Amino acid sequence: MTKNTNIRISLPAVCFVWQIAMIILFGIFIRYDEESDANWVKHMEEKNISSHIENDFYYRYSSFQDVHVMIFVGFGFLMTFLKRYHFGAVGFNFLIAAFGIQWALLMQGWFHYFDTEDWKIKIGIENLINADFCVAGCLIAYGALLGKVSPVQTMVLTLFGVTLFAVDEYIILELLHVRDAGGSMVIHTFGAYYGLTISRVLYRPNLFQSKRLQQSVYHSDVFAMIGTLFLWMFWPSFNSAIADHGDGQHRAVINTYLALAASVLSTFAISSLLQKHGKLDMIHIQNATLAGGVAMGTASEFMITPYGSLIVGFCAGIISTFGYWFLTPFMEKTLKIQDTCGIHNLHAMPGVLGGVVGAITAAAASESVYGREGLINTFDFKEATAKRTANVQGGYQAAGIFVAIAFGIVGGALVGGILKLPIWADPADANCFEDEVYWEFPDDEGDHTSVNGHSNANHVRSMPPELFDQSNP
Amino acid sequence: MTKNTNIRISLPAVCFVWQIAMIILFGIFIRYDEESDANWVKHMEEKNISSHIENDFYYRYSSFQDVHVMIFVGFGFLMTFLKRYHFGAVGFNFLIAAFGIQWALLMQGWFHYFDTEDWKIKIGIENLINADFCVAGCLIAYGALLGKVSPVQTMVLTLFGVTLFAVDEYIILELLHVRDAGGSMVIHTFGAYYGLTISRVLYRPNLFQSKRLQQSVYHSDVFAMIGTLFLWMFWPSFNSAIADHGDGQHRAVINTYLALAASVLSTFAISSLLQKHGKLDMIHIQNATLAGGVAMGTASEFMITPYGSLIVGFCAGIISTFGYWFLTPFMEKTLKIQDTCGIHNLHAMPGVLGGVVGAITAAAASESVYGREGLINTFDFKEATAKRTANVQGGYQAAGIFVAIAFGIVGGALVGGILKLPIWADPADANCFEDEVYWEFPDDEGDHTSVNGHSNANHVRSMPPELFDQSNP
Amino acid sequence: MTKNTNIRISLPAVCFVWQIAMIILFGIFIRYDEESDANWVKHMEEKNISSHIENDFYYRYSSFQDVHVMIFVGFGFLMTFLKRYHFGAVGFNFLIAAFGIQWALLMQGWFHYFDTEDWKIKIGIENLINADFCVAGCLIAYGALLGKVSPVQTMVLTLFGVTLFAVDEYIILELLHVRDAGGSMVIHTFGAYYGLTISRVLYRPNLFQSKRLQQSVYHSDVFAMIGTLFLWMFWPSFNSAIADHGDGQHRAVINTYLALAASVLSTFAISSLLQKHGKLDMIHIQNATLAGGVAMGTASEFMITPYGSLIVGFCAGIISTFGYWFLTPFMEKTLKIQDTCGIHNLHAMPGVLGGVVGAITAAAASESVYGREGLINTFDFKEATAKRTANVQGGYQAAGIFVAIAFGIVGGALVGGILKLPIWADPADANCFEDEVYWEFPDDEGDHTSVNGHSNANHVRSMPPELFDQSNP
Repeated sequence: MTKNTNIRISLPAVCFVWQIAMIILFGIFIRYDEESDANWVKHMEEKNISSHIENDFYYRYSSFQDVHVMIFVGFGFLMTFLKRYHFGAVGFNFLIAAFGIQWALLMQGWFHYFDTEDWKIKIGIENLINADFCVAGCLIAYGALLGKVSPVQTMVLTLFGVTLFAVDEYIILELLHVRDAGGSMVIHTFGAYYGLTISRVLYRPNLFQSKRLQQSVYHSDVFAMIGTLFLWMFWPSFNSAIADHGDGQHRAVINTYLALAASVLSTFAISSLLQKHGKLDMIHIQNATLAGGVAMGTASEFMITPYGSLIVGFCAGIISTFGYWFLTPFMEKTLKIQDTCGIHNLHAMPGVLGGVVGAITAAAASESVYGREGLINTFDFKEATAKRTANVQGGYQAAGIFVAIAFGIVGGALVGGILKLPIWADPADANCFEDEVYWEFPDDEGDHTSVNGHSNANHVRSMPPELFDQSNP
Repeated sequence: MTKNTNIRISLPAVCFVWQIAMIILFGIFIRYDEESDANWVKHMEEKNISSHIENDFYYRYSSFQDVHVMIFVGFGFLMTFLKRYHFGAVGFNFLIAAFGIQWALLMQGWFHYFDTEDWKIKIGIENLINADFCVAGCLIAYGALLGKVSPVQTMVLTLFGVTLFAVDEYIILELLHVRDAGGSMVIHTFGAYYGLTISRVLYRPNLFQSKRLQQSVYHSDVFAMIGTLFLWMFWPSFNSAIADHGDGQHRAVINTYLALAASVLSTFAISSLLQKHGKLDMIHIQNATLAGGVAMGTASEFMITPYGSLIVGFCAGIISTFGYWFLTPFMEKTLKIQDTCGIHNLHAMPGVLGGVVGAITAAAASESVYGREGLINTFDFKEATAKRTANVQGGYQAAGIFVAIAFGIVGGALVGGILKLPIWADPADANCFEDEVYWEFPDDEGDHTSVNGHSNANHVRSMPPELFDQSNP
Repeated sequence: MTKNTNIRISLPAVCFVWQIAMIILFGIFIRYDEESDANWVKHMEEKNISSHIENDFYYRYSSFQDVHVMIFVGFGFLMTFLKRYHFGAVGFNFLIAAFGIQWALLMQGWFHYFDTEDWKIKIGIENLINADFCVAGCLIAYGALLGKVSPVQTMVLTLFGVTLFAVDEYIILELLHVRDAGGSMVIHTFGAYYGLTISRVLYRPNLFQSKRLQQSVYHSDVFAMIGTLFLWMFWPSFNSAIADHGDGQHRAVINTYLALAASVLSTFAISSLLQKHGKLDMIHIQNATLAGGVAMGTASEFMITPYGSLIVGFCAGIISTFGYWFLTPFMEKTLKIQDTCGIHNLHAMPGVLGGVVGAITAAAASESVYGREGLINTFDFKEATAKRTANVQGGYQAAGIFVAIAFGIVGGALVGGILKLPIWADPADANCFEDEVYWEFPDDEGDHTSVNGHSNANHVRSMPPELFDQSNP
């Protein structure tokens, strides 16, 4: 009945071997690009660049740091809502991301930045942002599996997730020449279907045995709001981080800022509407308020107009909140998909919506709105796609959605199959959502209940449950 | 005796209708400005701008993100100090700000950025910063009302607050041509008197009935410190975000940084001095340490000198800490102003001080210190005010303080009157400062006290109160 | 037996007198530099600077803000891991830093930025960053003393710490012409040995009396993770904040980003390897994951290559984690050094490692890798050191390590002697790690245990300890 959750061999082995593999592969393949190399001064002279400020670093660094905060604090703390899985939320999020960004630099490097002359990948600030983006896909997937997988499984999930992501991204962005600056398709749609499919394969019929732990307490909802707010505040940076210099980044920020604001209002409205007495539900506030950012991932750099952004955010908040209310229970019962964080509502649906919005906006783009050069710059209608029209671009954008979904589902099925093997030290059904399975806790002797020298249930005074519980006293 | 706090119709109605109104008004009025429009490349050519880095986005974006953090995490978490109002603090702060920034873009747009040629408001990064600033005024006001108003009331408060703010700002900045980069007058003084006057109108003689909830517990003070620190750290960005490019932003950062440092020391000094055994009080540390930033809001871009900034911060910290000790109880008992967060001490007094400091510094400005061009740039002595002297500017600055106070008090009285109507579902006196009034909590069945299958007060072991309480064991 | 911990005279006196001294010294010595002075426009014309964006402010401001977050939230929250010392961790960290940055501006100003023409120190954004750096050294030292010193002692510690730091920095950076952009030697090595030596001098043989408080509880580990993550995420900014414009800052970010990622994996590996069942220990995750950033402090701006950075981070994580396991108990028992936060493992060892890595990398630098100009720029081989070779530079780098250690140990011994005087109101051995000694807590009457009007240990319902304790239920 009790599963073996000993990871003393497997976790160190995976971390060590994979990290050493990273070192070797980085040694073979990865070098500084011309903007981060000490020869930058020479490069400036050759390219007639007059100032250090033209180094891409100064265009993107503050956006990069914001994205970095979203990955590590945003995703990490958003998942602390469970009452007894804070370490697993923040800690395994940390582990996934730290490994994932290294592997992503390699995978994305081979597909996008490979210099065939010297067989090297040259990295700069844009690569770091893209690596963070790639990891976001895996963290979204982890959201569906939170509390039900071992740290070793999260590493496997990341290894394959990053690999699939890089191929998927290559097909969508390079082969189909689709624009997806904030990754509605590439990051959110892919990541969500990848995680949901894995969760389906790993379905636990007896998960109700740890139902007592699959909920929040008062302070855990506050910790989770730290995650929500850092995601919400920095989402404009996320959607603009790799957009074009100048108006591209500027516009992406405005559109995302507005979409997010609108989704807060529609989330509060629907959340209140759904409950007796109109009481608000923290699950909605923590998640659906972010749907505007997800849904603005593709179109953020387009001329969607400020009111267009508001409409997108407004709809995304509604869809997402209804999803938490209707779809999550339905999916668990009928489709047997156990989605701990509700990523279907926050990433899958708004991600697809974002792809659709992007396709429509792209198809409707015209020279009268963008200007001739603006149209070329925004959609990168150069070289191979120099003759593509906005209409055709819309079609390709739409195709991107299906590629992302397909990669998520097929990839998730494969990886789910691997993760189902009985070798990964995952927790028993009754011990899910429980930090003690994988984290050391001080033993009783050193514990604070032993204030008087011995641990005893009755000798210590108590605190009123209303302070930390969410129960009615 | 028990009030009807059902918001199931009113909150969704307000959120929906107002959000749809925003969409319509944005559709009619709001467009991208030339720096965020796809025609930016054409604009660069016309204006002979050589590089994308000259887009205002790169001058202000990182400051904008810092301000954004102050609004959502800073103000939100600062208000989590109450033991049982974390959701209301962070959540309604979120709601106010998300609605307020949209309405502010319109209101400030009509007054400051309206293009009479095509009847459109053109927005860019500076507008986003100003919208965040405008919302700060409403959040300050909310600080006085925290725990005593319904979410619908917060929306009404914001609608009128933003409207008043925009008019007030127009009079002070445009008509009187007053400089107020960090908003000592426009944001802090106005916001504080607006909130305090509303609180006076909504005076609750029986508020003592929920006195048990109007205090902090150990961990809530730590959550509040998250807010304090993010406000404190990013205040240099707040005061410099819309200052002039170059030395203006640079100097505003230095002055604010120094004023804040000095107010930390004077706060610690007075806090210790006031208590038996010299024990420090977290209320002071959480709030009065920020007074230096408030008081440096007007003069931050002036040549106030580094030691001048230290003096301002030093005095602000002293005044603010004494305010918490003497004035807050006095105001509650004598003036019948119940000020939950003590905004009178953190925003009203330091804000007025900031206005006075700004007036004096402006009056003392001279060409020998600023240089000819520097004086013109700093005080924008161009066009209509090309002939204004520093002395005269000082007089106008002083006038700005009274305008801000007047707008706060008169506006607050009007809005207080509206909020006093018995239709807003505000909580009963005994249920103030209590999240359960407006927030859903899991029912008992799913609650974590039912570890053994039933909820029972005695069967669960307890924790020593000294860990979370602030009582002496 | 009970010590006098009354600080009502001493703390206000120290804060007041020292703050007023700062104001006077700033009045005498500190002025704006040419980039933050209103005469900047004139300066632009004279120096033929074409754009405001060339103001150093725009090169460094977003890095500065990140460093600022590390100092106040990063260090502050990292130290909240103790169950009952949250206020002291965040609050005294705040006090130390707010005083320290002012004193650092003076001390570093006299040594590095003193203008002998007008006897003034001219400050700009780089000075603010350097002041934050200087304070980091004192905060590291405070980590060893956390919970065992009074706030007055922290002020004394900071006064002398900043003084020693500035001299140490002058010798290493100016006289020896050593490069140390992220301060492996100047900040981490010095700060750690300074704190450890003071801790040795202040050794408390009876500290076991407060052993019950010298540990974490569930939620305090989550608060500490806020500190960890903000340090981890912003460390690339720390190591690049004062690096050379252009490729220098760019490369420092990449190197630090990679080193940190690698140290996460090696920390997880070793942490799991050390425990029964492979369970992870939060102490390791909170601290050793940061070792990569410390160890990359010197070499971050060098051409260490991306895989070189991974190797450094990988080793630093291993060393640091083993340190927590083996060395901390050994040091306490054998060397009588009580190191509350384990700064020996996080700062001393990785700092020395960073110095060694820097020396080796510098010695191995060549024109073929850096380019002629790149080599000169990176190592600043100009003027007095124009003829220094990379090899010789390596030797000087190595010498810098010893200077930093010597300053830490000798300075720590002196300051430890001063702090040992029985006048500083430090806590008794049984009251260490306890906030109530220096912080006001609401008295029982107002306390939340008196829900029914009186405080009673038994009448309030309790919560299960497993929610907040780390004990096994």
